[in-house]
Amino acid sequence: MSAESLRFELAEYRDRLGKARQAMEQAGLDLLVVTDPSNMNWLTGYDGWSFYVPQCVVVSKNNDPLWFGRGIDANGCRRTAFLSEDRIKTYPDHYVQNDAIHPMEVLAEIITVEGYASATIGLEKDNYFCTARAFEALSASLPNAKFKNAYRLINWQRIIKSPREIEYMRGAGKIVGAMYERITEVLRPGVKQSDIVASIYDAATRGVDGFWGDYPAAVPMIGAGADAAAPHLTWSDKLVRANESIFFELAGVHKRYHSPLSRTYFLGQPSQQILDAEKGVLEGMEAGLEMAVAGNTCEDISNAYTSVLANYGIVKTSRSGYSIGLAYPPDWGEHSASFREGDQTELRPGMTFHFMTGIWNDDYGIEITESILITEGNAEFLADVPRKLFVID
Amino acid sequence: MSAESLRFELAEYRDRLGKARQAMEQAGLDLLVVTDPSNMNWLTGYDGWSFYVPQCVVVSKNNDPLWFGRGIDANGCRRTAFLSEDRIKTYPDHYVQNDAIHPMEVLAEIITVEGYASATIGLEKDNYFCTARAFEALSASLPNAKFKNAYRLINWQRIIKSPREIEYMRGAGKIVGAMYERITEVLRPGVKQSDIVASIYDAATRGVDGFWGDYPAAVPMIGAGADAAAPHLTWSDKLVRANESIFFELAGVHKRYHSPLSRTYFLGQPSQQILDAEKGVLEGMEAGLEMAVAGNTCEDISNAYTSVLANYGIVKTSRSGYSIGLAYPPDWGEHSASFREGDQTELRPGMTFHFMTGIWNDDYGIEITESILITEGNAEFLADVPRKLFVID
Repeated sequence: MSAESLRFELAEYRDRLGKARQAMEQAGLDLLVVTDPSNMNWLTGYDGWSFYVPQCVVVSKNNDPLWFGRGIDANGCRRTAFLSEDRIKTYPDHYVQNDAIHPMEVLAEIITVEGYASATIGLEKDNYFCTARAFEALSASLPNAKFKNAYRLINWQRIIKSPREIEYMRGAGKIVGAMYERITEVLRPGVKQSDIVASIYDAATRGVDGFWGDYPAAVPMIGAGADAAAPHLTWSDKLVRANESIFFELAGVHKRYHSPLSRTYFLGQPSQQILDAEKGVLEGMEAGLEMAVAGNTCEDISNAYTSVLANYGIVKTSRSGYSIGLAYPPDWGEHSASFREGDQTELRPGMTFHFMTGIWNDDYGIEITESILITEGNAEFLADVPRKLFVID
Repeated sequence: MSAESLRFELAEYRDRLGKARQAMEQAGLDLLVVTDPSNMNWLTGYDGWSFYVPQCVVVSKNNDPLWFGRGIDANGCRRTAFLSEDRIKTYPDHYVQNDAIHPMEVLAEIITVEGYASATIGLEKDNYFCTARAFEALSASLPNAKFKNAYRLINWQRIIKSPREIEYMRGAGKIVGAMYERITEVLRPGVKQSDIVASIYDAATRGVDGFWGDYPAAVPMIGAGADAAAPHLTWSDKLVRANESIFFELAGVHKRYHSPLSRTYFLGQPSQQILDAEKGVLEGMEAGLEMAVAGNTCEDISNAYTSVLANYGIVKTSRSGYSIGLAYPPDWGEHSASFREGDQTELRPGMTFHFMTGIWNDDYGIEITESILITEGNAEFLADVPRKLFVID
């Protein structure tokens, strides 16, 4: 990998590695096996759609991280990560989806050669790519090692964004703005949902103002009419209908950094029910955003939001936001802090969140959200899209 | 769920459930916890982008399957699955990404109420959504249960496609054809990779001939110039360059059914190296396709292909294909049969495969592939795209 093609200065990767090692030290770990693709990328730069087969980055106290993956993916590692050739290790192809053997057995041999067969090893045990079988195969092959759960250990190190990360997220915010401009152009009664989403993808991927669009960690989610009761449905060729609402949950993405944003449209004259919901959500957001300053906690934002909703008779059972940044499918959430009761994470400048204020009731749904950056003063909005119910009449 | 909105007749879901129960019987399972989203969909119709939080379908011998997921996703289940209200179970939102508690503890209570606390329970232990922590939480909460690995058990039941599944995959094949037509229109030296991919997404999602485009289980993968040495890289805003090759690995998708197809383009006069590779790949594919008839095995196709490649001095270390169909990110492979040495799966009519004949060497890459349906006679091609190196001069 030529250092000039890396998305961050080598010094920034070194700094991240320092944070990772400090966290490992505090957790009493000699070695950390990182399977979360966003953590792998954050630590080494590695970027490829190869997380559907076992792979990981192994962090130790002294040596550079080690990338471990399928043989055919080593060239992808050479092209995207800062690692030198001797830190790239692979397993043969017949280990792929083979009930009799598992790639983690090969990793165990490598860990043994590196001198960590009896070490205390951290695993991201609730990460999608640390399966029950992967853990069994690794632990059975390293009978003298001690394993600890290190799920979210690296995710928490990522919570304060660097200036360059913030630059990418502001770019992603511009992209999501362009996506909503495109929706406003094409959304009309009688248009197929799939044609709307085609336009969204086009705008998302072309990008804007020099920021090209990368793939999102979740596809466009929409809720039209009665389906707005469900937050995580996708599209079909159903027609957009007059006198119905439709919401979109989307993210602009640049170099794997996400700025999510939701807006709801009404095709025709909005019902009083949705106008009341809009009023409650916007007033609640104002209250939450007032709390979004350094020194307060994640819980403070959530409480401010849900208190206002309660005045409108709206109960929100799901969390009101989460940390965002670098992400791979299936989730653009960072899996660290959440805006919810009990989350005492102190807000600090450089933190970025999706203030996910969506309401899904049995008979309607409304999503009007913001992605925000905590600063020394008021929260900065990563995107600039009018915060309101969009009415297309 | 109104039965008329289901993507298959209720009888087809019943038939699938029968197959699942027979497989459970043979594996000695009383209960099966299905976390693979494609298996969940196949068994119940459930379709939502909610697999980033714990969820599953639980199959028992007698009762209808049980859907278990996050509270806010229950409405999505009501809208897409055939299950009745009493078979939809949820966990509260504070279980999401909470180190102290795990949704599988709630599932254990439900399993206990259903009378299976001491049962033999199958888990898809190498599926992405059956994490090491999920297994620990479930097994610790059900100390009298016996757990067996049932990874790929349901995937194998899906290997022969029904007429309606084949209809969807033929539709997906039409879509991938339209995607390549669009590429041929827009691919020129000097165009940004991201703009090409924007056009691909647009064509993929609009669909064609009445088949709307659903999201693919993997994003467009491309390999341009020297990057063609790596199979799983994605795009940036790099410019397409003259006198270079660029390959695409894409899938058309309709109602979650995939027909993948790869093609390689050369911008200018192709080098002798890539022309030789094209010749070897095409001749090898002919040899492989001759073996793609009922009664032969998956290994036969792979051997026929790699034998011809060997005559051209080309070594292929990775498998040459895999079963395809219904899929969710991060993989459109079915995780059942593979075209590789030792895979003795007998080819039977109704099986569908991506004949993945890609070659990635250190100095070039070429991908010319086909998605095929095994029939009573010769294999049917799911897409109709000229099988050749495309030259844009």
